[in-house]
This record gives sequence, C-alpha cells and structure tokens, in this order.
Amino acid sequence: MPHDSSTQRTERALAAIEAAGEEGRRIFTRVYAQPALQAARAADERAARGAALGPLDGRIVSIKDLLDVAGEPTTAGSIALKDAPPAAQDAAVVQRLRAAGCVLIGKTNMTEFAFSGIGLNPHYGTPGNAHDASRIPGGSSSGAGVSVAHGMAEIAIGTDTGGSIRIPAAFAGIAGFKPTQSRVPREGALPLSYTLDTIGPLAASVLDCARADAVLAGQDWQPLPARQVAGLRIGVPRGWLLTDTDDAILCAFEQALATLAGAGARLADLQLDEWLMAPARLQQSGTLSAAEAAHVHRALLDSAPQQLDPRVLARIQPGRSIPAPHYVGLLQARTRLQRELDAQLQDVELLALPTVALLPPRIAELEHGDAAFMAANGRVLRNPSVFNFYDLPALSLPMGRAGGLPFGLMLVARRGRDRELLALAAAIERLR
Amino acid sequence: MPHDSSTQRTERALAAIEAAGEEGRRIFTRVYAQPALQAARAADERAARGAALGPLDGRIVSIKDLLDVAGEPTTAGSIALKDAPPAAQDAAVVQRLRAAGCVLIGKTNMTEFAFSGIGLNPHYGTPGNAHDASRIPGGSSSGAGVSVAHGMAEIAIGTDTGGSIRIPAAFAGIAGFKPTQSRVPREGALPLSYTLDTIGPLAASVLDCARADAVLAGQDWQPLPARQVAGLRIGVPRGWLLTDTDDAILCAFEQALATLAGAGARLADLQLDEWLMAPARLQQSGTLSAAEAAHVHRALLDSAPQQLDPRVLARIQPGRSIPAPHYVGLLQARTRLQRELDAQLQDVELLALPTVALLPPRIAELEHGDAAFMAANGRVLRNPSVFNFYDLPALSLPMGRAGGLPFGLMLVARRGRDRELLALAAAIERLR
Repeated sequence: MPHDSSTQRTERALAAIEAAGEEGRRIFTRVYAQPALQAARAADERAARGAALGPLDGRIVSIKDLLDVAGEPTTAGSIALKDAPPAAQDAAVVQRLRAAGCVLIGKTNMTEFAFSGIGLNPHYGTPGNAHDASRIPGGSSSGAGVSVAHGMAEIAIGTDTGGSIRIPAAFAGIAGFKPTQSRVPREGALPLSYTLDTIGPLAASVLDCARADAVLAGQDWQPLPARQVAGLRIGVPRGWLLTDTDDAILCAFEQALATLAGAGARLADLQLDEWLMAPARLQQSGTLSAAEAAHVHRALLDSAPQQLDPRVLARIQPGRSIPAPHYVGLLQARTRLQRELDAQLQDVELLALPTVALLPPRIAELEHGDAAFMAANGRVLRNPSVFNFYDLPALSLPMGRAGGLPFGLMLVARRGRDRELLALAAAIERLR
Repeated sequence: MPHDSSTQRTERALAAIEAAGEEGRRIFTRVYAQPALQAARAADERAARGAALGPLDGRIVSIKDLLDVAGEPTTAGSIALKDAPPAAQDAAVVQRLRAAGCVLIGKTNMTEFAFSGIGLNPHYGTPGNAHDASRIPGGSSSGAGVSVAHGMAEIAIGTDTGGSIRIPAAFAGIAGFKPTQSRVPREGALPLSYTLDTIGPLAASVLDCARADAVLAGQDWQPLPARQVAGLRIGVPRGWLLTDTDDAILCAFEQALATLAGAGARLADLQLDEWLMAPARLQQSGTLSAAEAAHVHRALLDSAPQQLDPRVLARIQPGRSIPAPHYVGLLQARTRLQRELDAQLQDVELLALPTVALLPPRIAELEHGDAAFMAANGRVLRNPSVFNFYDLPALSLPMGRAGGLPFGLMLVARRGRDRELLALAAAIERLR
C-alpha cells in the first residue's frame, strides 16, 4: 500500500494532469479535481481512525469514458454523444468503486465507441504513448493505460472486447486484466458487443489489478493465494499467434519462457491453431461486434453517421447488412468451439503468448494511411481478441522493452478461474 | 399406475396403431413393434422381482420425429431428410427415457421442422384430430397428441417453440407441459429455434406429465408436493389474449375461473398487455425462430428448397434476410422484457388463460386456402407463443368441449418453478 496519504497522492496526480497541459486533456475527457480531493480527505480520515473500507480505500482510480457517471453525458469518445442526455445513475462498477472508497480522478479518453485497438481519436485527440508520445497508446482504453503510466491514476478501469485493456496495458508497460465476462456487471457501460464486452483494471502491479478486480466483481478482498511457478503447467500455442511478430518481442518471449522453465514451470507446446484461427475465419464475412454495435448505434447510424470517425463508421456500418442467420451461426459455432478449446486446455493452468505482436506504431503513420491503420489494427487485435471470443480470463504483464517501448506477456487461464490467474500472474511477476 | 402388465398394454397400443391402418401411418412415422415388446417384457420382469426402475418403467412412450434415435435418419417431418445420415447416438432425452425403462413405441409425425401450430404435413400426411378426424390435430407435435388420445401411447414426448406441445394437447383433450427451457437438455433434438425450443411431455394426466418431466430433466422421482387451490393467487391477463376467442372457449374459461374462485383461489385481473403484446410487435419485421431456422436449414435452403412444404419454406425463407442488428435487438429487448414481466408476476403463483383461442378448424379448409391457413396458424399460436418468448413454464389442462371438440386451460408459472407448476396443476385437475 502507498505510504503517502491519499490527499498527497491525489494532489500529485492532479498536478501531473495539470502539468501535462493539452496532453492531459487528451488523456482525460473530464477531471474530478474537487470531488477527488474531497474523497481523498475522507479516505485519509477513515484511515486515521482505523476505519478504512478496504484495500482500495483512498486509491486513485480513473474510469474509461463509457462508464456512466450520474448527471453527465457518457460520450464514449464520440463527438456525437457530447450533448447526450446525462446518465441517470452511476454504472454498477462506478457504484462499487465509490463504495470501496476509491478516489475517482477523472474519465479517460478512448477510441470512439471502443471500436479499435489502436487508440486514435479524431474528436478528442489521441493521447501519446507514455514512453514515446509520437507513438500510439493502444486502445481502445487509450487514456486508461497512459493515465497509470504517467502517475495520473494508480488504477484505471477499462473495458476489453478484443484487447482494449490488454493492448494499452502492454504499450504502457503496466499490467491489464480482462476477466471472464460474467464476473463483472456491465450495467451502465455503453456496449460495444453484448457477447464480448468485459470490464477490468489496468495498474502497475498484478496485486493492484487483483484488488480492483475484487471490487469490480463485488467480492470482499481476500489476499491472493500464494502460488509457485515451480510445477506450473504452461501451454505455449506454437503457431499462428506467434507468426508475423516483431523479432524483439519473439526474442523476449522465448527468454520469458526460459525464465519460467528455469523456475520450474513445465512448458508444453500446444497445437491449437484449429481453435485459435477459428474466430477470424468464422467472422471474415461479418463479426459479432459489428452486428451488435450496429444495433447499439442504430439511431446514430440513421441520423448522423457523418459525425462518426470514418474509420469507426467503416467498421460498424457493415454490421447492418450481416444476415441474422450468419450471426446465429457465429454464436452456435462459438459455443461448440468453446467446449472444444476448454477440453484442449484441461492439462495446463495457463497459456502464455505475446499480448501484441508488434511495437506501438507512430501515430502520424496511422493517422494518414487508411491501409496502414487497418493493417496495424488487425495485427494489434489478433492475439488478444481470440480470448474474448472464447471468454477466457487473460492478463498482460510487462515482458520487456525495445527501443524504450514496452510490450507484454499474455497469460490466459480457464473460464472462471480469474482469481487463480491473478495469483499465478503475481507469482510470475515476482520472477523479474 | 396402470394395472395391466406393460406387455399387455404394449400389445394393445400396437394393435391400436395397426387397427388404424393408414391413419396409424400418419400418426407414427416409425413403429418399434418388436423392440417395444422386448422392452415391455423386460419391464414386467423387473416389476415381478421388485426391481422396477421408477414410475416410468414399462410405460409406453412415443417420441416426436425430431429426436435422434441412433442408427436412424431424423426426418423432422421433412421429405428432404428421409435419407439423411443416420443419427450416431440417441438424443439426450431418449437416453434418459430408455434408462428409466420406458417402452418406446414409435416416432410421431409432426409439422415439417416443427414450423407451425396447425399440424398439416403434405409429405407424410396429416393425422386427424382424435375427436374428429376431419379437423386438425394441432401442431407441431401433431402425432404426439393424437397418439395419447387414441391409446397408442401413454405419454408422448414433444417439443414446444411457440405452443407445439400445448396446442396438440389442448386439441386432443389431454395435458401438455412446456418446461422452462434450461430444464431439459436439447442435445440430439433437431433445432427450430435455439432461443425458444423446449422439450416436454403430453399425457392424459398432470401426474404422468410430472413423471415424464422428471425423467427428461434427469431428476429422481419425488411425488409432487400436495398443493391446495384455496389461497392460490391466480392472475388473469384481461386483454389481448382473451380477444378474438371462440365464445364456447371464453364461456368455459369464465366457468373455470368461477370454479377456482369457489375453491378458494384468489383471482386478480392483471393488465399485462404491454408485455404480452410485445413479442408479436417486436417480431413483426422478423422473428427469432425464422432467423434461427434459416441458419439451421441453410444447406437445404440453398440446395433443395423445392422439397419443402411451401408454407414452411414461406416462413423460414424470410429469416435469411433479417439483418443481424434486428436479431440482436430482439434478444436485448427480450432480456429487458423478461425482467419486467417477472417483476409483474411477483404477486401471483399462476397466470390462467385459454391455451388456444379457437376450436380446431377443418383440415380441408386449411389445406386449400393459404390465407385461411396463415390466419388460423396465427390465432392458434398467439397465446402459447408468448410464454416461449418469456421462457416461463406453461401447462395446458383439458378445460371443456364444444361440439365434441376439446380445448385447454393454460397455466403459466414463474421461470424455473416447473415442479411447483405441475403440483398446482395437479391440484386444479382434482377440482374437476
């Protein structure tokens, strides 16, 4: 737990946002300066009289700008929602964070409607990568990752439909955790995909992710069970998800595997391409998220499509003409494939693979080239999105840096074993 | 329990099928004469040595021809599937029925792909109504209801996506029970609608429905808890579902309510049209079952649509062009409406209403007039289909006769209260 008081830390976080000037306004779409200080003082008072609410009491938390806060429009990175009707109540997770004593510092910027893994936002600006502001932050929870890396928040709450927590965590050099979908309630979160959306934390450490996850999941905090790397069975999906990957990342991945083996982990190469390639293959002629987003945003697509980022529109619009039987077939195939992959994973506790196959590209390159943008977006989403399709909990840990740019190691566990994944990731984090 | 041996009863059932000649072949698409007699003798031997397997041991059961039986093609009333590859294994419910000692007497005819509530089948013939062979049997489990009413089976297993158990039960003058969807596994049943399909029994008594339901649900038999009508809170949905209803049925319904009130039930008129009309309103431009059936039968729609009953084709084909966002919207609206109707039903144990709003029309009228067919189909399905949309357990009890033609009283309970519904229906059945 932090040594300084919540008030001191909140003042420093607010000062960091302020000092960042324009960049601060690209990271945060809204800053709750006075309410945050009030909440911090209240937390300090509780701490002083030994009445802290739990391990998140007084911790500084940013929330992604698609979570409802009562009385405010939820813009979800869209200019079209700038003057939307204010939310009637806080999102379920916002209620839980407040009840746990969190200091909500502000709302973080994001890709419009969470619809890309890159993090560009032509309406509210694109936050620079925390380690090289000329490069992308990763998305869609772009401000989330950067807010933690810059010390503007201790924990960021993001959402992940195809990698939107894990990608910005990897690119920011922090941890990011996508839970099993049913673990965290989604009431009051603007949907991208009803089938794939999840809500989870980004933070500097696995422990902070675990603490935030417990609050999001509505569970009383229990320390993570102590786990050892020795004897841990880790599957390595040799195949498609290790192709077309930057050399520096592949090299660091093999080193990470060697470190795990050296600590006694039992690595097993797995041939899972039949299942890992299926989501992309099945969704070639229409994706679950395009079909679902086209429903979510139907009014806007009818009334004011020109207000949307053309690259977001280009991905949602085709969802309107996906035939329902194709969508039905996707859901049926998914159920069958989930059962099959679950069976394939019976003999390992974890899968390990690179979170993202490439280092964060330059913003300018992607802003100006549609083809470059689409190609980079596809590469960025490839690995993480597979585990939304299968609804397996997954966590990105910092794995190394190349040219100062961080990248991540993704650990994946069986469905519902979220706490076990966090405990194992904490053990692996301690190896470093 | 029956007095005669299973062998004697099976011989009588087989004789009744045989004696019916051509009509027997319209009711049963397949008769398991020798295996049934073998199973009956084995059940009698178990009974003789006090080793009966349970209350369904030796009972004569027909199964709808969309349930897989290992080694046979599952035709689902379609000529296009007459030479389909044989099923590799028994459907889950068929396995359970066999394990419970049932005598499987044969497979019953049905509307092609279960896609109508009338029961016409141009491929395999239309079984006549058990009480007037010139009239429709009700569908889609047409042979199921007739097989019980004619003493060719003691219990029939049907499926119900919009009324396909309750309609033929009402028209046959017997009981029919549609469970909460998750109660009975659907593996090995040819789907019509993944969202709405259910599997349940038709039988002369609620008790036999309950015994069969326990086997289908994989539960050990426990006698139904004793329930009283006195004090029972019954909601009457005054409104749309009581409009456009034959006088004889409305009159008998009011009499049934008076009988219930006389026995101490507390009746309450409920204004539920907002919810009861929503399924039809929302699905006007495309139904869940059309979208899902268009996926299930996509290969056939591509390769040999001319083999289908034109009236079935006319209802499945439009499913192909339903846009996925409309379908997504239906599922989302359904979830919200279910929550709302659940809340409306908190203060009653049951809803009561007529199962079907009309007496069974003449086969000839519907065979020759498409408009008459569509109108009758809509009227027949109107009441029962609402409770598939809401996934509430529902049971049809005989309510009376007009001109010798039976009709039904539908009782609906809250989701998951299947056993309670059966217990309450047994108490109401005893009033007669």
